[in-house]
This record gives sequence, C-alpha cells and structure tokens, in this order.
Amino acid sequence: MTETNSTSTVEVRVEFKPGILDPEAASIEKSLGLLGIPEVAHVATARVYRLQFSGVSHAEAERLAARAVDRLLANPVIHRVTISPARGG
Amino acid sequence: MTETNSTSTVEVRVEFKPGILDPEAASIEKSLGLLGIPEVAHVATARVYRLQFSGVSHAEAERLAARAVDRLLANPVIHRVTISPARGG
Repeated sequence: MTETNSTSTVEVRVEFKPGILDPEAASIEKSLGLLGIPEVAHVATARVYRLQFSGVSHAEAERLAARAVDRLLANPVIHRVTISPARGG
Repeated sequence: MTETNSTSTVEVRVEFKPGILDPEAASIEKSLGLLGIPEVAHVATARVYRLQFSGVSHAEAERLAARAVDRLLANPVIHRVTISPARGG
C-alpha cells in the first residue's frame, strides 16, 4: 500500500466518434478560411479532463476515472474516450 | 519541396492559465463528489483542436496553427496554448 498516500493524475480525452457532427469544428473550419488560413482542410475538437486523485493508487485512479466517464463526462452514443496517465501527473 | 503534397496534422491544446477560473472544472468536481467519487481532489479542463493541413510542409503547418491560435482559437489573457504534432498525423 505504498501508493495510497500519493497523488495520481489521469487525463480523460473525449472526442466525437467518426460520423458524429462536430459543429464547433465546422464553424472553426469556416472561420479559418475567412481569416485567411485556407490551408486548413479539416478540424476536429476534443475535450480533455485532467482528474487529480488523492489517496488512491494509480490503478484505482484509472478505475475511478472510467467510472467518472460513465457517470458524467461522456455519452457513449456519440463520444470516443481515451483514459491515460497525465503528463507530469 | 517533397513535403508540399503531404498532409500535416497539428494539435492545439488550449488550457486556462493558473489562477484563471475554470467553471466547468469546478462544476465537475462538485458533481463527481455528489456522484460518489469523492477521491477526485482537483479537475482541470482543456480544449484540443486537431487541425489537418493539406499541401503544406509540417513546419508551415505549425506556423499556420500558431496564426490560427492568435486569430481565433485562444485568448492570450487567460489561455495557455501548446502546439504539437498530432498523434498519427
């Protein structure tokens, strides 16, 4: 139990599944063209949640992050989720 | 000019600077506690924009991404921005 007093930081990345409309990305694509950057062929957006856990092991932090995704952070119908250890976390 | 027909994908990550209020993160922190995951000590959010460029070199793509950040994607007063090559891009 040496890890239980440590801090573990997990990053949850939430993207749209292929084929799901990403209206913010579409708006950015259009705006960048109007702003004189037409070389941008495609834009996609993602949301990152950096969750810092205290008093749990890293494995437990990943398990709790997955539960947070299921309960709050993503919609499995439209989102693709990646859970990974945070940089510097 | 071997690179000019290629596709370069750049990721722009926009976070709040330290000390700037992140209301979505604060709401998530509170909600996760109410949902039975009180081990989450701190939450931060970030927005990722994945920009796919066509017909430009990778160096040019990073330069254009920096211009997109200045013109549209971030507010230098409150945001910290990281521009990096995309995974698989």
